[in-house]
Amino acid sequence: MAEKISVAQARRPEAIGKEVLLQGWVRTRRDSKGGFSFLELNDGSCLGNIQIIADNRLLNYESEVKRLTTGCSIAVEGVVQASPGREQATEVLASRIFVYGWADPEKYPLQKKRHSYEFLRTIAHLRPRTNSFGAVARVRSAMSFSIHRFFQEEGFLYIHTPIITASDCEGAGAMFRVTTLDPLSKEPRNPSQDFFGKPTYLTVSGQLEAEAYACALGKVYTFGPTFRAENSNTTRHLAEFWMVEPEAAFFELSDNMDLAERFLKRIFRDVLEQCAEDMEFFDRWVEPGLIQRLQEIIDSEFVRLTYTEAIDILQKSGETFEFPVEWGRDLQAEHERYLTEKHFRRPVILIDYPRQIKPFYMRVNDDGKTVRAMDVLLPRVGEIIGGSQREERLDVLEQRMEELGLNKENYWWYLDLRRFGTVPHSGFGLGLERALQFVTGMGNIRDVIPFPRFPGNAEF
Amino acid sequence: MAEKISVAQARRPEAIGKEVLLQGWVRTRRDSKGGFSFLELNDGSCLGNIQIIADNRLLNYESEVKRLTTGCSIAVEGVVQASPGREQATEVLASRIFVYGWADPEKYPLQKKRHSYEFLRTIAHLRPRTNSFGAVARVRSAMSFSIHRFFQEEGFLYIHTPIITASDCEGAGAMFRVTTLDPLSKEPRNPSQDFFGKPTYLTVSGQLEAEAYACALGKVYTFGPTFRAENSNTTRHLAEFWMVEPEAAFFELSDNMDLAERFLKRIFRDVLEQCAEDMEFFDRWVEPGLIQRLQEIIDSEFVRLTYTEAIDILQKSGETFEFPVEWGRDLQAEHERYLTEKHFRRPVILIDYPRQIKPFYMRVNDDGKTVRAMDVLLPRVGEIIGGSQREERLDVLEQRMEELGLNKENYWWYLDLRRFGTVPHSGFGLGLERALQFVTGMGNIRDVIPFPRFPGNAEF
Repeated sequence: MAEKISVAQARRPEAIGKEVLLQGWVRTRRDSKGGFSFLELNDGSCLGNIQIIADNRLLNYESEVKRLTTGCSIAVEGVVQASPGREQATEVLASRIFVYGWADPEKYPLQKKRHSYEFLRTIAHLRPRTNSFGAVARVRSAMSFSIHRFFQEEGFLYIHTPIITASDCEGAGAMFRVTTLDPLSKEPRNPSQDFFGKPTYLTVSGQLEAEAYACALGKVYTFGPTFRAENSNTTRHLAEFWMVEPEAAFFELSDNMDLAERFLKRIFRDVLEQCAEDMEFFDRWVEPGLIQRLQEIIDSEFVRLTYTEAIDILQKSGETFEFPVEWGRDLQAEHERYLTEKHFRRPVILIDYPRQIKPFYMRVNDDGKTVRAMDVLLPRVGEIIGGSQREERLDVLEQRMEELGLNKENYWWYLDLRRFGTVPHSGFGLGLERALQFVTGMGNIRDVIPFPRFPGNAEF
Repeated sequence: MAEKISVAQARRPEAIGKEVLLQGWVRTRRDSKGGFSFLELNDGSCLGNIQIIADNRLLNYESEVKRLTTGCSIAVEGVVQASPGREQATEVLASRIFVYGWADPEKYPLQKKRHSYEFLRTIAHLRPRTNSFGAVARVRSAMSFSIHRFFQEEGFLYIHTPIITASDCEGAGAMFRVTTLDPLSKEPRNPSQDFFGKPTYLTVSGQLEAEAYACALGKVYTFGPTFRAENSNTTRHLAEFWMVEPEAAFFELSDNMDLAERFLKRIFRDVLEQCAEDMEFFDRWVEPGLIQRLQEIIDSEFVRLTYTEAIDILQKSGETFEFPVEWGRDLQAEHERYLTEKHFRRPVILIDYPRQIKPFYMRVNDDGKTVRAMDVLLPRVGEIIGGSQREERLDVLEQRMEELGLNKENYWWYLDLRRFGTVPHSGFGLGLERALQFVTGMGNIRDVIPFPRFPGNAEF
């Protein structure tokens, strides 16, 4: 009786001698003289294919096997044997091939050639059948699970913060409206007729709600979708993306920095270990040197310095920057890249930014001019993590909100966290897709999420 | 130097003799004669508190310690010692107590008494500070992580299907509109002015998109938020909830049933093992017998039978039902409960439902009258999982869509999955909150999600 196994299992030398059942999709067929054919079979369990040897003793060899083309789905029964080829350890000598489905080569859009990423974006439902997008999917899954394991092992509770929200993480970005009213209707309406009885939006961050749980249960994290209704058509922006946001009570900024550094190293290491074949693919075809670059980050100690020190370094660098370097202005990508790529040549954590360029919830330092912000910068991409120690002092927080013209009534519950048993606490956010771009080398963020959402695009 | 540890760690006998730093919130203070006080301290790491012994040798004993009330946040340095009490193994003799934040007992809503769930829903930002909601949060986190571990260990890839969607999992329910147009404006507008250039909605299911990935990569699962814009004010409905949906290529319905049974048993077992103290709390205060009921399910073999057989059993039962039992009608809760609680006294998987009561994507059986649907029913709650083998035959699927009046053009990409290399495949969906209600015994679904969304409610 044939054992049902995956292509990944069948490619291991331990499988040699086994009678197996494999199921998957034909990548290519090559006919040889003497009445036999080679099929490359893939089932998504790994990047590589397994070679199937099909010969004319198969009852359907002429009628079906020789008609198989890229994309056809089949089952193969046969014996795993050592492969004489250098590129694979095993192959399967088929004793039976069953065809589930055909893929008319005149119509099937994925043929054996390289397709542009632009074209593949128009068939997002089929692109996981390619090497690149299969690899992205496996790395995305491995990284997501690594994120969960890291935080669970560190004693953080996974919290689901709301997606539909009436509040706003202080203008983190433009928001989508969520409504049951027809936006195209011309009938007079008022907000009380809407589903929630008031205007509601898609969340831009789970931070504020995560703070409520951290201020009750200690260490928590969210990991869910977040949204920006910005009209950005860049390779770094999506309207819908996934974000992981840890938040920990009794964490000062140094604890937060330690956590972020351990976290990044852990997810990079897990992906390198668990997706070795996929990572070699990206290193070879997408960004040469990728694996070494990740390994260097894992082995490095992140530099930690203040924004003020960074400004000083930049001003004394002798470099010509497009944007001015001046205390009180935000750093631009070129500045961040100078610090990580030229000056320090490793990851940098910048802290203590000017209060005027950071949101209301960041803790004000004793100098009154800076806040306990923290940005983690990586070579080539700049900021990958943004976070802070939060302002836990009710009076200071209220003063900051007044400064910024925020309506305190909208934040009554957030202020309650400071009113009752307030504690020092800190957290940060990592955009999953930015991290995936960094790890895979994929240039366009639309290619590291299954069905990207951007202006004008919500097909599928 | 005191070691910073959690309350959970300090409660274990291994901690005895250690000099520790604990940080958390005061649950109660009790003063004793002779100049000392007992504080119950909780930090969310577990349900139970640790007892702190504070005496008048502390410099701030009179000025601060004796003013501590429920909800105050403190740090405690001291030595863990064996407790003479029967209810706990350890206690901490404080050498220093630092107060982070006060909680004015005149204003702090959580006092030492039982509060109603209704009241606690109005302070969803503070309710995780109670025993019940802390326990729910820990169980929710443990169950969510167990879900990930189960599927990862079974070789499933975690796929993020889109939240904003232009398609619709065939009327699974009313949908929220997502828009950047102001629904209250009276200006004339058309859909092309909206962010995505067409009407878009919040997803009701990731199934269709998960099928695209299963038909490329084999075994996948989604786990994310889903939405229903239904005006339901019940203890079993939310407008926003989390759903896990596995989808596997080359899975027939029997594989799907095996997966669902293994899956439920695994997540119940993990919660019982990993949240033992929380589960004892629910068993004692929320639903007596809970743990035994879960253990029985873990130990049982689920009954499998067809809808038609179930109708026969119900008709011959001699029971008086409120709703009629008739082939072709959907089963009601009373029917499901009769099967699981009285007739079989264990979980039941019902398959092969009449085609007219199930969606277009379920595989039509050879009898032409039934489809390969599968509902997993549990005692007391009825359906907890719904799934099916999917229709992989293009012609049959198109015919079903015509029958139901669906516009095939909207599903072009879904039909492509059958046009090119189609394969038998199956999947199911589990609502996380329904599973949590079952496992904790919590009666109202609004109490098993941090910030519930229901008609008229999107505060916080």
